[in-house]
Amino acid sequence: AAAFLGDANFFKGRVAGGGVEVADSLIRTGDPLPAGADAVVMIEEIEHPAADVIEIRAAAAPGQHVRLVGEDVAAGEMLLPAGWRLRGPDLAVLVAAGVGEVAVSRRPHVVIIPTGDELVGLADLAGDAPAAGQVIESNSLLAVNLAAANGATAAVAATVPDQPDLIEAALREALQAADVVVVSAGSSAGAGDHAAAVMSRLGEVVVHGVATRPGKPTILAVCENKPVLGMPGYPVSAWLSLDNFLRPLLARLLGTAPRAREVVQARLARRVPSPGGVREFLRARVGRIGDEYVVSPLSRGAGVLTSLVQADGLVEVPEDREGYDAGTMVPVGLLRSRGEIDRAVVHIGSHDLALDVLADLLRRAEPGGSLSSTNAGSQAGLGALARGEAHLAGTHLLDPATGGYNEAYVRRLLPGRRVALFCLALRQQGLLVAPGNPRGITGVADLARRGVRYINRQRGAGTRVLLDYLLRGAGLAPDRLTGYRREAYTHLAVAAEVAAGGADAGLGIRAAAEAAGLDFVPVAEERYELAIPAEHYELRMVAALRAIAVGDAFRRGVDKLGGYDTSCTGEVRWVGEG
Amino acid sequence: AAAFLGDANFFKGRVAGGGVEVADSLIRTGDPLPAGADAVVMIEEIEHPAADVIEIRAAAAPGQHVRLVGEDVAAGEMLLPAGWRLRGPDLAVLVAAGVGEVAVSRRPHVVIIPTGDELVGLADLAGDAPAAGQVIESNSLLAVNLAAANGATAAVAATVPDQPDLIEAALREALQAADVVVVSAGSSAGAGDHAAAVMSRLGEVVVHGVATRPGKPTILAVCENKPVLGMPGYPVSAWLSLDNFLRPLLARLLGTAPRAREVVQARLARRVPSPGGVREFLRARVGRIGDEYVVSPLSRGAGVLTSLVQADGLVEVPEDREGYDAGTMVPVGLLRSRGEIDRAVVHIGSHDLALDVLADLLRRAEPGGSLSSTNAGSQAGLGALARGEAHLAGTHLLDPATGGYNEAYVRRLLPGRRVALFCLALRQQGLLVAPGNPRGITGVADLARRGVRYINRQRGAGTRVLLDYLLRGAGLAPDRLTGYRREAYTHLAVAAEVAAGGADAGLGIRAAAEAAGLDFVPVAEERYELAIPAEHYELRMVAALRAIAVGDAFRRGVDKLGGYDTSCTGEVRWVGEG
Repeated sequence: AAAFLGDANFFKGRVAGGGVEVADSLIRTGDPLPAGADAVVMIEEIEHPAADVIEIRAAAAPGQHVRLVGEDVAAGEMLLPAGWRLRGPDLAVLVAAGVGEVAVSRRPHVVIIPTGDELVGLADLAGDAPAAGQVIESNSLLAVNLAAANGATAAVAATVPDQPDLIEAALREALQAADVVVVSAGSSAGAGDHAAAVMSRLGEVVVHGVATRPGKPTILAVCENKPVLGMPGYPVSAWLSLDNFLRPLLARLLGTAPRAREVVQARLARRVPSPGGVREFLRARVGRIGDEYVVSPLSRGAGVLTSLVQADGLVEVPEDREGYDAGTMVPVGLLRSRGEIDRAVVHIGSHDLALDVLADLLRRAEPGGSLSSTNAGSQAGLGALARGEAHLAGTHLLDPATGGYNEAYVRRLLPGRRVALFCLALRQQGLLVAPGNPRGITGVADLARRGVRYINRQRGAGTRVLLDYLLRGAGLAPDRLTGYRREAYTHLAVAAEVAAGGADAGLGIRAAAEAAGLDFVPVAEERYELAIPAEHYELRMVAALRAIAVGDAFRRGVDKLGGYDTSCTGEVRWVGEG
Repeated sequence: AAAFLGDANFFKGRVAGGGVEVADSLIRTGDPLPAGADAVVMIEEIEHPAADVIEIRAAAAPGQHVRLVGEDVAAGEMLLPAGWRLRGPDLAVLVAAGVGEVAVSRRPHVVIIPTGDELVGLADLAGDAPAAGQVIESNSLLAVNLAAANGATAAVAATVPDQPDLIEAALREALQAADVVVVSAGSSAGAGDHAAAVMSRLGEVVVHGVATRPGKPTILAVCENKPVLGMPGYPVSAWLSLDNFLRPLLARLLGTAPRAREVVQARLARRVPSPGGVREFLRARVGRIGDEYVVSPLSRGAGVLTSLVQADGLVEVPEDREGYDAGTMVPVGLLRSRGEIDRAVVHIGSHDLALDVLADLLRRAEPGGSLSSTNAGSQAGLGALARGEAHLAGTHLLDPATGGYNEAYVRRLLPGRRVALFCLALRQQGLLVAPGNPRGITGVADLARRGVRYINRQRGAGTRVLLDYLLRGAGLAPDRLTGYRREAYTHLAVAAEVAAGGADAGLGIRAAAEAAGLDFVPVAEERYELAIPAEHYELRMVAALRAIAVGDAFRRGVDKLGGYDTSCTGEVRWVGEG
């Protein structure tokens, strides 16, 4: 008998009585034991003094280095129970066990019917802007995407006007092909809302109106033995209605449970009042500051779809609570992976378009990294830094006493803290006016003229501080301005309001005027800096952001916006003691 | 001017000077403000004393109940940064903003080349069992599934024998179409392993062998400027190699970061020795017992693919540690959603096929619910209950002093605890022998005959306790049995070993003999009970399990297995003080 050798391989032998009968071929890890063999001897345990001689140095026992055939899967064993989501290892186990076919749940099919006289398809516009009163139909995408992400297929039916008979015909047709039908909009109880009445004709409305906020005008009906969801028209309400009702429904049809979101405990950055009696769902930013998660609720407007885009998580305020106090630890269901949240740089502060450039470049440079930015104004940003709710704050606060920027505010709002002021850019502030400047506005003095409607920024915004400073210089009291109390939260929102004719002028940066196609009357140049407390300054993602800011790509991106001067970019002033 | 009324709707008016000019049509929430109007008055705030008279009760200010047009998205605003994963709300925001096309990352294409003389395709077998020495190719499914789950497409090339020239030709061809190539098996450094040599011919092997366990024989190469992964042949190693290297690679190609797994802190159920110097990845069961997660490592065998199927999470032992002590809190990366884990009933104890029936019915009755079962034997199960590592333990422990089952052991192993013994079934134990009983085995006395090879169960298993009891009754010392020290962990593993000819007899349940097509020599009937501590008895999922056990579906399922008597099923004995 002979043994063929190979490094890291075994050869096989048969222990018979006290002696060893060596088998005539080599086996490798994982090979089946040849007939007659009942033990394996490791190659390291033999000597091979001559071509036809093999010596085994250690005693070998039956079963040595032999795995039982039933170690992994034995006949009769249940490989997988019912209702199991098949992943790679599951499929491989089935195939390895010779199972080439398994019965699986059919994917439910969802048909979505958009309703509304005002709706127009993006494709139908063929590149034109929607006419006045037209709205681009987009809520159906929420349903299509949620269905696809939860194991279902989906199709969008043709948009139906607000006419009960047409909606009924569309619902009848959808029920032919669908396992679940979603009727988009018209789910409220108003004069133009027909969804519930139509569903009643074809079946039974089980629930009309749910105690959630947003998402109240939701209809749950059964028509021709199939579940039908009446989805609200406001996009955030629509999404919430899908998430609360369509998601578990699809899971049930697939015989599984809906995937639970990852939950983290987070500190609420501000007080959240809530009416009680309804379950409120707040979209929120979540950031990891030091060892702790901090959660900042976003806009509650049911029409503000970007609040869902920006949201990292959902905070639920239960029915029996009238909100939460600031600082409360609350559970947050994550809409993004925790890994992404852990890598995000949290910015709260003044809004500037250069931050978007920075955010974009950071994502390209650091996959999975992000700049999570909340536009709260300069002073609110410094306050957030003081309370440990952000890594950095964009700020452009003019000190009326000195004419300098930011430093005095950091000393006052972050006493005893060591904070870097990292210059992002100098930028032009001015009055945003309609193209051609029809009101002939040349400076802040003109804002007090009769008939000129102003749109202001919110309290604590650096731009408002600048306006007040300029008004004082011009000897004007704020209440001389019509619209002084109307507040927008970003430069671009000011620009949009002026562009839409809702106001004649607003103070803002040149880049915002250029983005909105407005004229611009310069009034000041200011220093926009990032305030970065020392303990965050060397964090990997913060350092990456600083490196990007002094690079060419950032400079080029900012130059394109207009109104920026990057000669100071990257200059650092330290404020406070080390 | 007139106002048309409707419930829950608004009408619009224009504040001019001190008076109000009422517009001539009604608007609804979300409608654009008509030209000329600059405020909205709520319907609740007006009186309508006569057909042509409208009284506004409260003062109206410009901008009242008006949302700014830039509130959601203003022109010039960045909707989404680069590298963003597009979900439903993101798509809806794009479409609502008139963006019908976006540039996205192309899905990377992965081609997998299975290699190995022993491989046979499941389809090629056409329903036959594989011949001796043949192995069904299944590892490619691991790669296909991981690619699909991480945003890539995948294709499996034809299986290639262990010949360098053929592997090279296959790799050349794959590189034409693929962004990434995975060569399955042959990645070690043994005589029959050619992957690394072939990759060196077409490019550069950057890494050959990584310090992980399992997963060591991994190759990272660059051929024709494309990444090539040499994947180990053992399925668990293969999966780990894909998870550690292919997953981040695909994320990088897509410009994102790999999704981080949800992590929970869990208490290690037992000591985990580890060699140090390598990063070890343990597949583990995770259960929520009371307020705490408990993690129990599964088989470490790199060939045991079911360990990945059963795993709820991965525990990493870092390079600089030689394992963990029992009771250590360790981070566990979850392979299943936390919601599923929270709903799972954790069973540790004796293996019985009736548990599989129970598990299957629980999943059907409670979507998302599951019975997570670890076969550790009866005594180990009671020990796990004592240490708070399981909700219940299947047990069939004969008390030699009384001939009764389980109660004495519960008193001894769970002193001072109140525990229910819930009878699942009476079942027959007997000797599993080859069809036709060629050795003529009629009882335990025959096991001591010369030439009869026995396969035993592990220490602490009820079946082993029974064997020892029967041997004592027959006046036989354990060392009279050849193979007394060879241990299998389940009835089915014993049956598989007898069926494969590796042993002549083993003690086990009749259902295992029937599943494996073996003959069965009855020797005892025993009481298989679930030990359930009082604090878990009323948990929702435990109660669901009890309800299922006394139902008809369970009875029918168990009757089909053979050798069970369900006359006692559902009987409860309480042990210990309340």
